[in-house]
Amino acid sequence: MTYTLVLLRHGESDWNAKNLFTGWVDVPLTEKGTEEAKRGGTLLTEAGVLPDVVHTSLLRRAITTANLALDAADRHWIPVKRSWRLNERHYGALQGKDKKQTLEQFGEEQFMLWRRSYDVPPPAIEPGSEFSQDTDPRYADAPQVLTECLKDVLERALPYWEGEIVPDLKAGKTVLVAAHGNSIRALVKHLDGISDDDIAGLNIPTGIPLLYELDEDLQPVTQGGTYLDPEAAKDAIAAVANQGR
Amino acid sequence: MTYTLVLLRHGESDWNAKNLFTGWVDVPLTEKGTEEAKRGGTLLTEAGVLPDVVHTSLLRRAITTANLALDAADRHWIPVKRSWRLNERHYGALQGKDKKQTLEQFGEEQFMLWRRSYDVPPPAIEPGSEFSQDTDPRYADAPQVLTECLKDVLERALPYWEGEIVPDLKAGKTVLVAAHGNSIRALVKHLDGISDDDIAGLNIPTGIPLLYELDEDLQPVTQGGTYLDPEAAKDAIAAVANQGR
Repeated sequence: MTYTLVLLRHGESDWNAKNLFTGWVDVPLTEKGTEEAKRGGTLLTEAGVLPDVVHTSLLRRAITTANLALDAADRHWIPVKRSWRLNERHYGALQGKDKKQTLEQFGEEQFMLWRRSYDVPPPAIEPGSEFSQDTDPRYADAPQVLTECLKDVLERALPYWEGEIVPDLKAGKTVLVAAHGNSIRALVKHLDGISDDDIAGLNIPTGIPLLYELDEDLQPVTQGGTYLDPEAAKDAIAAVANQGR
Repeated sequence: MTYTLVLLRHGESDWNAKNLFTGWVDVPLTEKGTEEAKRGGTLLTEAGVLPDVVHTSLLRRAITTANLALDAADRHWIPVKRSWRLNERHYGALQGKDKKQTLEQFGEEQFMLWRRSYDVPPPAIEPGSEFSQDTDPRYADAPQVLTECLKDVLERALPYWEGEIVPDLKAGKTVLVAAHGNSIRALVKHLDGISDDDIAGLNIPTGIPLLYELDEDLQPVTQGGTYLDPEAAKDAIAAVANQGR
């Protein structure tokens, strides 16, 4: 008896393509991202992995990815749950900034610290500024978030993992989580027991379902899970690692 | 204090365009239907009607309509609930048949009896036949349905209305129901207290939100509700009434 979990990072977004820090800014998918999402659904069908329930963030790029992938897999009718706890990392004052410019302005060391350190958040965003979400009605019931490091993401994602996702897994459901680079990195860190240092080297490709079979103690049967298209995943992971260059 | 309910019939589907009886057959929207759905969302925004929760059927044309309309209204992140009880009427052995051919084959009287009588269902569909849903996993927990009249639709929709939609309304939420011609006719019959005879004359246009303000006894403040685009609704209602001609 194993539990089946599928993690899916959204397809390419408008700001992925423009190389801007996005965080909680609610940008749409690009045409390419739309195709990636549909292909994610086809990969699910081909692997015979049929989600019984989907969990998404509150951001359009993850929601649209889930909608398109599930429609392609003929599973558009399954129950849906959403939470801000699956959102991308809040990128603080970097939201809306160009990654290459930020790299040049602050230098490689500071840039990589903000992007990949486990516990150093970027400067907080100013409430009321253009790319802040402090008055967005969808976060009315959430605590105010003005910046986050990956540690913060893990700490706010874990209660949702324990409270909402694990019960679905233990009920025998195949669970799809449609989310973001950093919320998925946080979940993978937890599942695979990756150290605070080693998580810096982990990148998640867009649009390729990552399948975890979990044993009864919710430990991965295969460390790191299995991408449903391993070759494409390898290439995409390399591309993510080179962002900002 | 009033409660706010919005009923939205899906945009034009592939089989609306081909003039086939659809029922529970899970066909996609046409290009026109996609545009209708998006425009439905724009109408919500323009009217300042912002859904807090959406209820859909288990059929792709209603689900996609909800997804597109809510994305256009920037409400893609709200909670979603789905049920077979909001499905279109099951059209029995007529599913997949051409409306015009059926009219010619069986004559005006029988045709209108199947389409618009309150309590005469079409012949049952044969389980296992091409357009039957008897082995579809999404209905695994539902009773077997092989044909329905409008009375049947109302009887299976009412428990969902009472058990799932009314509690959301009473919690003060603006509720969007994205569904079908006949499941919406059933709800409207219930809300407006339309007689078994008079309901035959009621047609619901595709893609135009129908707004009901309900008093504390869940009685409509305005009988028949208010279409968010009354002119377009009038034209579309006339077109629905003429189907099969």
